[in-house]
Amino acid sequence: MNDHPSKTLATFAAQLCFEDIPDAVVRRAEDLFLDWFGSAVAGKGARPVETIERFARAMGPGEGKAEVLVSRRRTTPLFAAMVNAAASHFAEQDDVHNGSVFHPAAVVFPPALAVAQELGRSGKEFLVAVVAGYEVGIRIGEFLGRSHYKVFHTTGTVGTVAAAAATGRLLGLTPEQMLDAFGSAGTQAAGLWEFLRDAADSKQLHTAHAAASGLMAAYLAQDGFTGAKHILEGPQGMAAGMTREADPSRLTDRLGERWALAETSFKFHASCRHTHPAADALLQIVSQHNLTPQDIASVRTLVHQGAIDVLGPVVDPRTVHQAKFSMGTVLGLVAQFHRAGMKEFADHFNDPGIAGFRGKVSMELDEEVDRAYPARWIGKAIVRTVDGREFHGRVDEPKGDPGNTLSRMELEQKVMRLADFSGGATLQEMQLASERIWNLASDRPVGHFLVGG
Amino acid sequence: MNDHPSKTLATFAAQLCFEDIPDAVVRRAEDLFLDWFGSAVAGKGARPVETIERFARAMGPGEGKAEVLVSRRRTTPLFAAMVNAAASHFAEQDDVHNGSVFHPAAVVFPPALAVAQELGRSGKEFLVAVVAGYEVGIRIGEFLGRSHYKVFHTTGTVGTVAAAAATGRLLGLTPEQMLDAFGSAGTQAAGLWEFLRDAADSKQLHTAHAAASGLMAAYLAQDGFTGAKHILEGPQGMAAGMTREADPSRLTDRLGERWALAETSFKFHASCRHTHPAADALLQIVSQHNLTPQDIASVRTLVHQGAIDVLGPVVDPRTVHQAKFSMGTVLGLVAQFHRAGMKEFADHFNDPGIAGFRGKVSMELDEEVDRAYPARWIGKAIVRTVDGREFHGRVDEPKGDPGNTLSRMELEQKVMRLADFSGGATLQEMQLASERIWNLASDRPVGHFLVGG
Repeated sequence: MNDHPSKTLATFAAQLCFEDIPDAVVRRAEDLFLDWFGSAVAGKGARPVETIERFARAMGPGEGKAEVLVSRRRTTPLFAAMVNAAASHFAEQDDVHNGSVFHPAAVVFPPALAVAQELGRSGKEFLVAVVAGYEVGIRIGEFLGRSHYKVFHTTGTVGTVAAAAATGRLLGLTPEQMLDAFGSAGTQAAGLWEFLRDAADSKQLHTAHAAASGLMAAYLAQDGFTGAKHILEGPQGMAAGMTREADPSRLTDRLGERWALAETSFKFHASCRHTHPAADALLQIVSQHNLTPQDIASVRTLVHQGAIDVLGPVVDPRTVHQAKFSMGTVLGLVAQFHRAGMKEFADHFNDPGIAGFRGKVSMELDEEVDRAYPARWIGKAIVRTVDGREFHGRVDEPKGDPGNTLSRMELEQKVMRLADFSGGATLQEMQLASERIWNLASDRPVGHFLVGG
Repeated sequence: MNDHPSKTLATFAAQLCFEDIPDAVVRRAEDLFLDWFGSAVAGKGARPVETIERFARAMGPGEGKAEVLVSRRRTTPLFAAMVNAAASHFAEQDDVHNGSVFHPAAVVFPPALAVAQELGRSGKEFLVAVVAGYEVGIRIGEFLGRSHYKVFHTTGTVGTVAAAAATGRLLGLTPEQMLDAFGSAGTQAAGLWEFLRDAADSKQLHTAHAAASGLMAAYLAQDGFTGAKHILEGPQGMAAGMTREADPSRLTDRLGERWALAETSFKFHASCRHTHPAADALLQIVSQHNLTPQDIASVRTLVHQGAIDVLGPVVDPRTVHQAKFSMGTVLGLVAQFHRAGMKEFADHFNDPGIAGFRGKVSMELDEEVDRAYPARWIGKAIVRTVDGREFHGRVDEPKGDPGNTLSRMELEQKVMRLADFSGGATLQEMQLASERIWNLASDRPVGHFLVGG
């Protein structure tokens, strides 16, 4: 079999070693793990998450080696991955890779953690698997491109293969088996944006599905189950069915030299990432000019097409979750509180002042912003005040992006706020988790975090 | 919420009652159940099926109320549905609905049987759920049309919603919950044809995935988990992402009057359905003119585009399974044995005579055949003999189609051959199963078939 993009990528994932990965990338993987852990704990008590957890309890075993964080119980890796994936994609605080518009953490960490716990794998082995999952998933997201994202939730679709890569690395798959795992994962790739229109619960189902399907694909491959060898770029593969603009060169872009994981952004606001650039631009204006919401007559946000596609349908949010996809709500919270965190959403998303602010906010396609996207997420906003002044705000990199990242202290504060908000873990437990994660790159087993080991 | 196609279809599935269904349709549902049962038993020992069963054992509970037919054990409905769905799509002997190019049995019966066993539902309730699954799945397959099938395995994609419909009816979902179940199922819809090129194992994974995902969607809906309300026809739904020619009127075509289940065909040859029309046309020629394979210089088959898309890539089959997608192999077996059954494939698919015959067979797009497809699958073949004669064969309805169907005795013989071939059940067990299935329409629980109740 000749080399081809799917095979090259699968071989990379199967052969990646700890020694191949630069220190800074390992450190960033630890950062992303803590950030993910906070998001997973933040899902506790969320109705869609708890519903999936009840299904896992009804259908899956009541014991095992993998922990379900929100319920502090153990089961088999399939169900732990499923529930933890659902949980970590609820608060809209999990990470995002700009260029691929892909949320890697929610689909990579759940299967990696569950399988590492099942197999007693070391922190180093776990980190290698995580890096494999990120590098694979991000490149496939870039490969499928913007036309894929118009209809498909990339995190759900690409997530299956990213989950298979991480699981497969922990299982020690050969390159051939890894390619089979990609085939079985990619042929289960699914996730449509249609649910946004109804504020339905599908987002957590997408990550649960991706994590579980990808994990299954890798286990099957280990046991000899074969898959399509060109699932990504073949004439009846993912790109053929699910996008109009695939660029196969992206699949193998500087493998082993470029570390896409390190390009991943942390979320600062607790909303859909498409709202962040404009939110930071507005924050700049209201801070500099000391404006209150009442001072503002209108906010024109200048955005990329993807923002219009995803946020456009959300005009009258009826739930906290839907509000996170409402540009007007996010900007209202920022104007009022100078932040749009979990607490601001939960307590104020539908306050009369916020609901009224929505009507002041509009989105317009901006050529420069759209051209830069998705490599860079530029934020532009134009505020007109009730007394007739006009202010222009601009950010070239929103807070949390690699060039404007969160420090380890800011990350610890973020995850403690998340745990505190949901009651998913005590501050002491989060402090202990942080310390363990900052020292993860060792030969000791990853072990358990909230369910005694 | 106004009426719209997804809602109308979901309401039909939720409200269907035994009394609504004509007797002839109930009888046909029983026929299809026995036919499915034979296919499920026939999957015993098949490597891809046994691999999925080992995964189910590793990840799922070792006890429950739903039976896994190939391994004669019980577990939760999720895993029984998953494994039985994989098993019943292996032998290529499960049913097909021509107009939708959809194999309903493999994705409808597994979740319906598992959930009926879990909940102790009656034979009548089971049959109602099955009819709901067929009517929903077939109409969605017709809605997505031929351009969907070019890249996507309709049984895998549409199968998620059909499985949700059957499961949801047994769970007694309200119309609103059923619509949620459709949303959660449709957003997990997946299955790409790419695997055919490599003779990979994905086909059984597709039905396993559809059955498990659809079952999960219905259970989640019962517990309040919401889904997109226009998952089929919405601007970011299945049709938007996965086809270029959706016709929403097909979704609600004569609901309650037209019974699509009764249009479903039984398979006579043990090969991909796309080979059957030409196989029957060749059978007509060799029977009428008493030809042996050695008499034949060439066979031109005149086919629809879908046959070329699916069978075209398979030029040199290396496995029995791949041979079932090889027009040349199927026609070689028919010319030699006057049938292409499980046994002929297993023992002879790569005999020198059969392999040599492949080179004599060509496929050509035929305008009449293509225009009639998929409503009618016309078979045409032109044989040229080594002594220069030319014969034209034509069948308007291949054996097993509604107008040329199998009798109950022929069905019993078929499933006994299937059980005998795999060793999945004794002839006595199959006889008992047949008798029970011919008397299924009662208030008694469906019960268990191979694992003592």
